[in-house]
Amino acid sequence: MPSTNLTFSSREAHRAWLAAQAALPAGFRVGTTRFDFVPREAPKPAKMTLTLIALDRPTADFAAAFTKNAFPGAPIVVGRKRLNEPALGAIIVNNKISNVCAPGGVETSERICAETARLLGLGATQVLPSSTGVIGWTLPADAIMGALPQAVSSLAAGSILPAAEGIVTTDLYPKIRRADVGGGCIVGIAKGAGMIEPNLATMLVYILTDLAIPRGELRAMLARVLDASFNAISIDSDTSTSDTVALLSSGRVPCEDFGAFERGLHTVCRDLAEDVVRNGEGVRHVIRVSVSEAASTGLARALGKAIVNAPLFKCAVAGNDPNVGRLVQAIGKHIGAFAPKTDMSKLRASMGGVEIFANGVFQLNPEKETALVAHLRGAELYASAPPKDGVFSAPVDFPPHERCVEIAIEVGNGPASATVFGGDLTHEYVSENADYRS
Amino acid sequence: MPSTNLTFSSREAHRAWLAAQAALPAGFRVGTTRFDFVPREAPKPAKMTLTLIALDRPTADFAAAFTKNAFPGAPIVVGRKRLNEPALGAIIVNNKISNVCAPGGVETSERICAETARLLGLGATQVLPSSTGVIGWTLPADAIMGALPQAVSSLAAGSILPAAEGIVTTDLYPKIRRADVGGGCIVGIAKGAGMIEPNLATMLVYILTDLAIPRGELRAMLARVLDASFNAISIDSDTSTSDTVALLSSGRVPCEDFGAFERGLHTVCRDLAEDVVRNGEGVRHVIRVSVSEAASTGLARALGKAIVNAPLFKCAVAGNDPNVGRLVQAIGKHIGAFAPKTDMSKLRASMGGVEIFANGVFQLNPEKETALVAHLRGAELYASAPPKDGVFSAPVDFPPHERCVEIAIEVGNGPASATVFGGDLTHEYVSENADYRS
Repeated sequence: MPSTNLTFSSREAHRAWLAAQAALPAGFRVGTTRFDFVPREAPKPAKMTLTLIALDRPTADFAAAFTKNAFPGAPIVVGRKRLNEPALGAIIVNNKISNVCAPGGVETSERICAETARLLGLGATQVLPSSTGVIGWTLPADAIMGALPQAVSSLAAGSILPAAEGIVTTDLYPKIRRADVGGGCIVGIAKGAGMIEPNLATMLVYILTDLAIPRGELRAMLARVLDASFNAISIDSDTSTSDTVALLSSGRVPCEDFGAFERGLHTVCRDLAEDVVRNGEGVRHVIRVSVSEAASTGLARALGKAIVNAPLFKCAVAGNDPNVGRLVQAIGKHIGAFAPKTDMSKLRASMGGVEIFANGVFQLNPEKETALVAHLRGAELYASAPPKDGVFSAPVDFPPHERCVEIAIEVGNGPASATVFGGDLTHEYVSENADYRS
Repeated sequence: MPSTNLTFSSREAHRAWLAAQAALPAGFRVGTTRFDFVPREAPKPAKMTLTLIALDRPTADFAAAFTKNAFPGAPIVVGRKRLNEPALGAIIVNNKISNVCAPGGVETSERICAETARLLGLGATQVLPSSTGVIGWTLPADAIMGALPQAVSSLAAGSILPAAEGIVTTDLYPKIRRADVGGGCIVGIAKGAGMIEPNLATMLVYILTDLAIPRGELRAMLARVLDASFNAISIDSDTSTSDTVALLSSGRVPCEDFGAFERGLHTVCRDLAEDVVRNGEGVRHVIRVSVSEAASTGLARALGKAIVNAPLFKCAVAGNDPNVGRLVQAIGKHIGAFAPKTDMSKLRASMGGVEIFANGVFQLNPEKETALVAHLRGAELYASAPPKDGVFSAPVDFPPHERCVEIAIEVGNGPASATVFGGDLTHEYVSENADYRS
């Protein structure tokens, strides 16, 4: 279940809510700068934003998780090394180019860290780099060096909103979530499945807290929380080469209750993960699949993923078509391929609270069909309209509501459960990724 | 490499070629009939076609493979039992409703077999049933019973074309492939289009031969041929609940050379599999991925599947956008998730003969970009055009050519190879599956 059930009637209403979420924890400042450059591989003018997140003093208490893609970006290679460093003092993020398998990519990433560190009076290994954008292109290192002083001079305490906006690319809106715990807080921002011109979606998440949590506990909690939040979503089954979640504590506020901190961290991560799906490319319906009574958590999560990644079911949802045959197909595809001995005879499935499958057969009739269509329409974020120029795009830049297409699967042969979020497959997704040339 | 490199300038040219492929092997007749009915679950008028394939006398020499989906259709349940029967005399196929997990589905399927058998003077277990279409709905048993006599009276030798046309659903055109072996022949037909990532078989494929091959050899050959044909394609990663490949020999022509027969069978299966992709729902580019120097055939095929199933790469291909970063992402996604210890440092990749990745870094420049765009445009089956009513559809009902987007991956650490076929992800796919209500 979601921790919030928000609705927004306008961009202004959403921005006012964001501003209230955005108060920075003690001990952090953020700054951004934007500049023009020309990529080497496809020479036409482009813009890049640098976002800087700085601690007032370096901290030993930080945690991070990175993509498992076998071709990780250079900042991921550098970031994994940073996990062994005694302290971290800043994060430097660029958009537009992801610096993945580009010639000299790691050296460029280290050079940017070193210059950021020099300007901030830190050691070079106290800066964590992040990049997102086109895969395969090379970073404009000199242009970045030239822009760094402006990012540093713009550093300000107070609000994380400039950073939430700085890392956004074609996301429709910035994403900020917070939890207040004891006398401190946990604030997270995410750059989701937006595209930098039509290229690979990258998820970047930065979570800041002023609560004092030692490194070991911080890393253990992040690892536990990730599985049920960012590892439980899929927009299109593609795994970015740049995915990063970083968590930093300034240690300014003593933490009396680690359990409360972990619950707050879980809330922030789960809500941000849901935001990433809600603002996924072309997503018009968020699909929440709750799988229970499974033999293992792994199987429960895999079944949820199989459903939210089944293209035919995703298209049906986009069309407000309760084609539940495609849903059951997706379950059967996964079980048949990966767990063929599983007993499926007790499986029950419902959509929007309407039972659609039990005792090995579908439970359908015209009245249920009408109710299912109403459920799908109620979860639609916006209606699709054929555009004059042939390129579909979203007519909103705020999340109108947090309702989901609610699917419940009771496998009927075990104690485990998992909840997975995904989106539908729409003309807006295809336009975003096929109709624009990079 | 394909066995053919055909081009067709019009529907008429394609139909003339099909007619030449369609000559039935000795000992077979086909018949069809079409009728109106109203589905129980969604009461609005619909049409169904029955297709009957009959042997002049029952044969012991038949083979079949079925879907591995854990929710198989009722005809699959019945068909698996038929494999143990001493002889088969006919196949009865309906489209529109797939009879999957519908109440009383198996009983209805057996009842249709029994009536078909009665009309043909066969035993009830000598008829193999097949159904394709909407999952979850119930077959109109009485309407089918009423239509069967017309299907029987339309049986004719000569051409398989009526059957190839009778089994289609969203296919744009019928699919027939043949191989002439010794004094006999092998003729196959396929119904494809959507929910296509077969797992040990494909949607509906019927292969007829007059060459005498004993049951044991026939089944062994079919099993061998499937892996490199129907199990090497994916249109949308979804696995149908009704996949069936059936192979029947009338035994009218002595077979002197089993090796030649198996090669002919392989050609027919591979060409039909490629046809199924070429006529996949919304497919505007066929993508052929040749993976070599892999540690195992399984890994080679899995990497090919990872590429042809990566939504972002599929969208880029649809837009003639050589976004090779998405291609490498797809390889890295699979290796990172399933074979993380694999050495990727020697991997080389090319598209259309243009090297794009080697020595751990991309090999890109503006001239290569131009060449890659030209390759993609050359492989496009038809150009997409925004429709007035917002529903995208293909402007052709024949395959204009057999050119593919050619991708070669040399993993660089083993002796195994595999070739996989897939399609792009287009507005036409979304329209087919979201804009029309089934």
